[in-house]
Amino acid sequence: MAEVLGVALVGCGTVGTGVARILRDHSDRLAQRGGRAVELRHVVVRDAGKPRDAAVLGALVGTSSEVAIADPAVHVVVELVGGTTVARGVVLAALAAGKHVVTANKALLAAHGPEIFEAARKAERVVCFEAAVAGGVPIIRALAESLAANQVTALQGILNGTSNFILTAMADRGVSYADALGEAQRLGYAEADPTLDVDGSDAAHKLAVLAQIAFGVTPKSGDIEKVGIDRVQATDIRFARELGYTIKLLAEAWTDGPEVALHVAPVLLRHTDMLAQVRGAHNAIQVTGDIVGETLYQGPGAGMMPTASSVVADLLDLAVGRAQRTFAAAKLWSTAPRGFTLTPSEKVRSRFYLRLSVADQPGVLAEVCRMLAEQGISIASVIQHEESATTAHGVPLVIMTHTAETGRFRAAVRHIAGLPSVVEPPVYYSVAG
Amino acid sequence: MAEVLGVALVGCGTVGTGVARILRDHSDRLAQRGGRAVELRHVVVRDAGKPRDAAVLGALVGTSSEVAIADPAVHVVVELVGGTTVARGVVLAALAAGKHVVTANKALLAAHGPEIFEAARKAERVVCFEAAVAGGVPIIRALAESLAANQVTALQGILNGTSNFILTAMADRGVSYADALGEAQRLGYAEADPTLDVDGSDAAHKLAVLAQIAFGVTPKSGDIEKVGIDRVQATDIRFARELGYTIKLLAEAWTDGPEVALHVAPVLLRHTDMLAQVRGAHNAIQVTGDIVGETLYQGPGAGMMPTASSVVADLLDLAVGRAQRTFAAAKLWSTAPRGFTLTPSEKVRSRFYLRLSVADQPGVLAEVCRMLAEQGISIASVIQHEESATTAHGVPLVIMTHTAETGRFRAAVRHIAGLPSVVEPPVYYSVAG
Repeated sequence: MAEVLGVALVGCGTVGTGVARILRDHSDRLAQRGGRAVELRHVVVRDAGKPRDAAVLGALVGTSSEVAIADPAVHVVVELVGGTTVARGVVLAALAAGKHVVTANKALLAAHGPEIFEAARKAERVVCFEAAVAGGVPIIRALAESLAANQVTALQGILNGTSNFILTAMADRGVSYADALGEAQRLGYAEADPTLDVDGSDAAHKLAVLAQIAFGVTPKSGDIEKVGIDRVQATDIRFARELGYTIKLLAEAWTDGPEVALHVAPVLLRHTDMLAQVRGAHNAIQVTGDIVGETLYQGPGAGMMPTASSVVADLLDLAVGRAQRTFAAAKLWSTAPRGFTLTPSEKVRSRFYLRLSVADQPGVLAEVCRMLAEQGISIASVIQHEESATTAHGVPLVIMTHTAETGRFRAAVRHIAGLPSVVEPPVYYSVAG
Repeated sequence: MAEVLGVALVGCGTVGTGVARILRDHSDRLAQRGGRAVELRHVVVRDAGKPRDAAVLGALVGTSSEVAIADPAVHVVVELVGGTTVARGVVLAALAAGKHVVTANKALLAAHGPEIFEAARKAERVVCFEAAVAGGVPIIRALAESLAANQVTALQGILNGTSNFILTAMADRGVSYADALGEAQRLGYAEADPTLDVDGSDAAHKLAVLAQIAFGVTPKSGDIEKVGIDRVQATDIRFARELGYTIKLLAEAWTDGPEVALHVAPVLLRHTDMLAQVRGAHNAIQVTGDIVGETLYQGPGAGMMPTASSVVADLLDLAVGRAQRTFAAAKLWSTAPRGFTLTPSEKVRSRFYLRLSVADQPGVLAEVCRMLAEQGISIASVIQHEESATTAHGVPLVIMTHTAETGRFRAAVRHIAGLPSVVEPPVYYSVAG
């Protein structure tokens, strides 16, 4: 049996503790599957005095990442610090010292991918990141290995478990956004400050990582248009259901020849769509390849053990020597162009759901229809309930359009919003399929 | 760039033609991702005079597998002959000649896995078989690589597209089994002789392959209990729907400590279950790992291009050198025990759906309930419609049980079948979840 694979954890919160437990509790299994023992040798934390899980205390617990990285018995540094500042330093130092890196840090990859992967190639070391996107769902391997014969032509993912938990609670039990968020926070599915989850930022980071693998593009902050779930209302969830749809926060990559558009937004999916069935904190990604067609990957999107499972899969790939081959072949975040260019989401074609609050007076629907028609957009269906109570906010008018270019639809909405009979800002979402 | 990877196709039906097209149409893409060119050099067919796709004619087309295997410019033999006789000979000859093998042949692996993998290890060559199970769904890599940190504790798969197409047609449009089968044959989803698909044999072969990877067990023909869809009636699909369930043909592995039970049968799944949403000829596998929890993989289960996509993924893994590492680490079909033993499905615990045709007379339900109770089985719900027409076949009585051991449930059914008031053989299926 080959030399032991020595591991240092830098950062040891929930996921780090999970990794330590797997390495301790399943050492025989890992040695058998990796062809060599995998041993936790250092754990680097901010506060060495804090009580730790027994699995963590089996390693040297210290506060210096330099010491851990410098130990010749360490071959892999697992970065679980989070954020983009300290984490970047740790990763670059580890690579410079000739250590492989495993990270679960999508924000770091989205912000500093080119620098980090260039450093890895220079050092002839590997950066693995299965845990960075969709927790326990092996989407990185699916894109980089399993679908290697394909050019991906579309991606649609439920990549933020917190948002999906909240939308599922709103749809199942009719609770408000605020109540569902409170519940997610009590159950530990949402942070005290949930902004990055519910405003789409977290999903956008993950989409940036997937888009790099699938298309070789490196979106900068701001290149991914994002709309979060924080303005999704119970009334839209009800209307969507009446029409046969479920609202999900989707991260999407859409291609048209060499153009790729990336965005994160709430989208209406048919009840029978596989992605519509993904509930609670689960994640799922539908990948369309030009050869294979549509494939789907689903599982727990976060949490101690699912994410740790992906980190340890990366460690085993390094132990076996597979990761080294994959890394050299994949040329991720390299400067070599792969022919795709980013395009604004304005060009994406979609159907749309539009909800207006209108004054209860004749001629409103006619005006709205005319403004859509002026942009070449035709209407598939309209809901305006006779029994709808007229309030200060007007009566709801819901329109489903046929397929239209996003930019033209938005232009129509801007005009519609200016109508005196439209009494609140219009609400709209795209409709998948 | 490294030496060209030379490929010989032995057998060139639908999937072989798909592979030839990918190698011709995407040679730049494959060379980039594999780090070396992948070239089709020989195609071995039974009838060299038959018209062929232009992509096939780019290679040397002949009738001798010996000639193709002996060519030093061939590094990989892709076996697409099918069956277990000629295919076995081709695979063993290729390995003996020092060539890697890629195969889509689940029947071959299920029947001769130990011999073939032993030959590969002896020859220090690799056998890849992503295309052997679930067509374009990368389930082999998921089990062997992505979930490597886990011990699988349960598998549930929709592994036969023909059966799923037929059940979907029956459920969606209320057509009979015979009509749905006829439609599947007209559309090319079912063979002229559909026996292996609809009686569960094909799914059982695939389950045998998955069980080898997940548990290290090597089930012999007959070790996997199987019930096909050929006796599923429209009336059961209707009753299942009324109860909130969909009937799917599932291949399942169930574990209890070191025991593993394997079976293929129609199963009732809740409408909201992800597997219940898998429609038409698609395949899906839900894998439960002891660390990650439940994950799911879904996609096209057969067809020219999806299956060819998986074959070419294997070729790229060989080109990159990843397959060689995986193969050495996985020790598939080796004699080394992994601690699991096969157990009969009689021991599996499940809920059950039971439909009886009973004479319309008092006391029948009481007798049936007593016989279930004698086996310790309690009843969750009963459907007996007042308006049900009494016919020569009696009136339908549908019972859903609580969880019970399969063996005890079957014993109760044997007793119930003997009741004079039960006028047709009882129909029963297990209920998932």
